[in-house]
Amino acid sequence: MARSSRTVLPVSELCRGILAGKRAVLAKAITLAESTLQKDQQIIEKVLKKLLPHTGQSIRIAVTGVPGVGKSTFIETFGELLALEGKRVGVLTVDPTSQKTKGSILGDKTRMERLSRNPHVFIRPSPSGLALGGVSYHTREAILLCEAAGFDVILIETVGVGQSETIVRGIVDFFLLLMITGAGDELQGIKKGIMEMADGIAITKADGTNINPAKQAQADAMQALHFQTPSLSGWKPKVLATSSLENKGIAEVWRMIQEFQQHTTNNGYLNSNRQWQQAQWLDEIVEGYYREMLNQPFIQKEKKQLLKKILNNSLLPADAAKQLWGYAIPGKKKKN
Amino acid sequence: MARSSRTVLPVSELCRGILAGKRAVLAKAITLAESTLQKDQQIIEKVLKKLLPHTGQSIRIAVTGVPGVGKSTFIETFGELLALEGKRVGVLTVDPTSQKTKGSILGDKTRMERLSRNPHVFIRPSPSGLALGGVSYHTREAILLCEAAGFDVILIETVGVGQSETIVRGIVDFFLLLMITGAGDELQGIKKGIMEMADGIAITKADGTNINPAKQAQADAMQALHFQTPSLSGWKPKVLATSSLENKGIAEVWRMIQEFQQHTTNNGYLNSNRQWQQAQWLDEIVEGYYREMLNQPFIQKEKKQLLKKILNNSLLPADAAKQLWGYAIPGKKKKN
Repeated sequence: MARSSRTVLPVSELCRGILAGKRAVLAKAITLAESTLQKDQQIIEKVLKKLLPHTGQSIRIAVTGVPGVGKSTFIETFGELLALEGKRVGVLTVDPTSQKTKGSILGDKTRMERLSRNPHVFIRPSPSGLALGGVSYHTREAILLCEAAGFDVILIETVGVGQSETIVRGIVDFFLLLMITGAGDELQGIKKGIMEMADGIAITKADGTNINPAKQAQADAMQALHFQTPSLSGWKPKVLATSSLENKGIAEVWRMIQEFQQHTTNNGYLNSNRQWQQAQWLDEIVEGYYREMLNQPFIQKEKKQLLKKILNNSLLPADAAKQLWGYAIPGKKKKN
Repeated sequence: MARSSRTVLPVSELCRGILAGKRAVLAKAITLAESTLQKDQQIIEKVLKKLLPHTGQSIRIAVTGVPGVGKSTFIETFGELLALEGKRVGVLTVDPTSQKTKGSILGDKTRMERLSRNPHVFIRPSPSGLALGGVSYHTREAILLCEAAGFDVILIETVGVGQSETIVRGIVDFFLLLMITGAGDELQGIKKGIMEMADGIAITKADGTNINPAKQAQADAMQALHFQTPSLSGWKPKVLATSSLENKGIAEVWRMIQEFQQHTTNNGYLNSNRQWQQAQWLDEIVEGYYREMLNQPFIQKEKKQLLKKILNNSLLPADAAKQLWGYAIPGKKKKN
């Protein structure tokens, strides 16, 4: 690349490059979206505004599971299958642990080495150091940018630790949970809430001596799903046994997702869910403004004073709240 | 009672009655705290402000567990033990399911029949029909009122379904989880996140033929706790086997809670945790103002218009958010 990655392209050039499917430009745009600099944000908003009509045509899939479940191996095999079918695949990783473990994210490209060399595939690791919310915010923008660049399947990888799933659930169409056999009660617990979000479950590593335990895990998961309240989508989640190593069950996962897409397109859920997600996105940004407002130094200073009074029992939190709100929004004083 | 329950006492009379430990007045004050009428709220805020110096001296204990674990039987036996030791016990119930199941809450007094007749005990069932957040908000106020009325142990009963625990965890000193033997994986899953909140676990119904399974459950729970990240309190949660029927292990639970109180008083955690809880309370009320602001009809109307544009891909959520914020807080327009 002749240009350094910090060279800022003009909006029109960014748009042209993305629409032409140029990965280097796409990568640059995602970097701008992830930037906290105001001027970068301004550029990317203009870009997104122009690209909006070219977005929305992909199927957005979350791939999640606890560490060790085999997410990257699965994505590699799954992504290659999709590429063989002529699909263009974007892979975005959301890893809330990356701040702690570093490396794990930076290693994404090496983890999915074969896939990253595939001309139909674009892999984008999330930078570490971003807050969980920040990652998800920019992941939405990254999805739109990938779609404008012509990718028709977007995989969002996330580590199964709980909070991130809830966020990612709110930005995808299909939530695929990978589960492994022989996970103790400890792990089952983690998965419980997450299982309820799943549109499909793939038991991984169903190969070699692990086939029977995997079949058992499949039956158990099906049993557990059976007791679940039916989803708004009217879709009944499926559980499949897969082996990325032997490339077994992977095509079935794709078939399941296509069935889901068909089903929810027909009954209107796919669309209404996306509408709901857009409304959520709006709410989140407005809420961000609210937090920003309260985080202003002079408000924080007032709050500290009020807290002191609360803590020595001379002020009720309710009264303190009224005063604080009055500082934050003069002219909108709370009266009771 | 000569007065109807809707007769409003003057603030000074309410305060006097509460400080004198009069249950009828206490009950009336809690009803005011739970009221959504502005004039009731005004009265109760004045009352609370006057009573503040008389609050804070109790130990606040959450008692939680899935339906069927034996919460009311436990509380009955436990409450009687405390009363025998000369303690004055307030029991507040928070039951998020009450809206669905009705009766369950109204039945509280019958459920704890013996205890409700005990002169040292005050039982207050939460009214159904209040939102989860509302209940917790008023539960805090109810705690303060009970404390001002001289109760020195406050038990807050909640049904183990997840969300309510997180809220209740934020208003108590000690979180006691009741667990039953033979609960399947299904239930274990529910409990996992909740186990992490527990300062102590009591295995219930450890009697008759159930003694050995209970001992096993105790060992399992201890094992599970062993792998947990240590709590900020520096306190290691304990697991005890109890039988409310045979009054076994109940005194040990009380001893455990007293040890906790001693431990966290000494290391300052009890106090700093309460300070944190007060700050949380303040934040929640301010957040309530924010939601109220956005729920104004003219804002909702504008939002609807903006959403329409978002949904036909002609407006970015980020731009819509800026406009909406500008409507909500004129003069505080978001510029980017």
